[in-house]
Amino acid sequence: MDKNTQKIVLIGTGNVAHQLGLAFIKTKIPICGVWGRSKTKSTELAKKLGASIIEDLHSLSSSNIALICVTDTGIEEVLDKIPKEVKVAYTSGSIGLSNLPKREALGVFYPLQTISKNRSIDFASVPFLIESQNTIFENELKILATQISSTVKIANSETRFQLHIAAVIVNNFVNHLYYLGEQQLLENNLSFDLLKPLIKETANKLDQLSPKEAQTGPAQRNDQLIIQKQLAAIKEKDTKEIYRLFSQMITAAQLKA
Amino acid sequence: MDKNTQKIVLIGTGNVAHQLGLAFIKTKIPICGVWGRSKTKSTELAKKLGASIIEDLHSLSSSNIALICVTDTGIEEVLDKIPKEVKVAYTSGSIGLSNLPKREALGVFYPLQTISKNRSIDFASVPFLIESQNTIFENELKILATQISSTVKIANSETRFQLHIAAVIVNNFVNHLYYLGEQQLLENNLSFDLLKPLIKETANKLDQLSPKEAQTGPAQRNDQLIIQKQLAAIKEKDTKEIYRLFSQMITAAQLKA
Repeated sequence: MDKNTQKIVLIGTGNVAHQLGLAFIKTKIPICGVWGRSKTKSTELAKKLGASIIEDLHSLSSSNIALICVTDTGIEEVLDKIPKEVKVAYTSGSIGLSNLPKREALGVFYPLQTISKNRSIDFASVPFLIESQNTIFENELKILATQISSTVKIANSETRFQLHIAAVIVNNFVNHLYYLGEQQLLENNLSFDLLKPLIKETANKLDQLSPKEAQTGPAQRNDQLIIQKQLAAIKEKDTKEIYRLFSQMITAAQLKA
Repeated sequence: MDKNTQKIVLIGTGNVAHQLGLAFIKTKIPICGVWGRSKTKSTELAKKLGASIIEDLHSLSSSNIALICVTDTGIEEVLDKIPKEVKVAYTSGSIGLSNLPKREALGVFYPLQTISKNRSIDFASVPFLIESQNTIFENELKILATQISSTVKIANSETRFQLHIAAVIVNNFVNHLYYLGEQQLLENNLSFDLLKPLIKETANKLDQLSPKEAQTGPAQRNDQLIIQKQLAAIKEKDTKEIYRLFSQMITAAQLKA
């Protein structure tokens, strides 16, 4: 793909559009236009990326690749407005290709990462999952992803869906445990910063050990004395339920082959 | 404390004894002896640390500092065998000083970290929580910890207990979610390695954002379409229960002020 002829248009102005846009221009791949429902947000992002504001999606042409970075429920609506000859890819983990109206060049460009607007992402190590029924377009998307990441895979919708479930578990749910840990400390006027080295080591340990091998703590040892003592000391209802459930699950998992 | 006169003895041969021992000798603080219930294990650790094997705890003297690195339920038993004039500290998060028989110099030397035998720890950033009723000994322990870590705090038993609960949440429970994510992928013949960049970014995001700010995903957006679709696709019973519970909790937490 020639960097000078591809004209990438970002559809959406949220976290993913922001961070992908920045990653592209960092690799000298220009973003030619930005479309968003909110005029303020699209103006802001277009300015940041040195791109034009797309007023009307119907104005896109076959020289564009439109990257749809909107929430899952919004994809079909914007897709309807984009002329059939435009190549389109979307960034969702859970929407299957067959769930969307067919078109000549429709594909998936899914970064397996948690993306927030105010936190820049180094995409180099982020797995990108690519899919299209159109093999030429699939290859184009693959080449595009390769320019920002070293882990690019062709994967069908079912594989992507399963990976998205696992991603929800190890990112969204893990982050909620960070939140509960933070609440537990705030209640006792203790700084969450004290936990950060532990949180990082918990993640980094997986470079060397499997999650089962990496497990430590009272439930891993089935130390009921400490488990009951800690459980009794937790005031917050959700945290108490989580504590009870995880302690049982961890003890059971350690006994499995 | 003079490095040449302090004679540290490690009591225990598990994960904590291993890694603390290695951290001490790396900082040129010698370990003079190792005691363990298992002869094989104490021989192995003593050899690794260039220390002698302590055959009988009754042989320790007032020139020793005994660091008890055994599980919580085993502390009192070994403590009984150590002569009263020996300075003793233990490494547990959840055992309060007042839960143990009084002695002249009894203290706590608690590293807030997950420690496995086969994973070396860089203690430099690990918070150490120190406590003793004997202020001279408390200070000795503080100086000792300062030689391997830059974050050393005097903290009472209640503070340490609360921190240990939070540590269980953000380490043991988080690690169990890694396990469930791994299981979800194994069932679908997918490599857990694909999740590792996401797992690390989830932890590292906290350098910049609070857990609440860092949250993303279907439950954060209360996207019931995806939530129900993912829930229906999960076969494993525990994972299904966890998915339902966390999705509710995350959506509720996002609505809180």
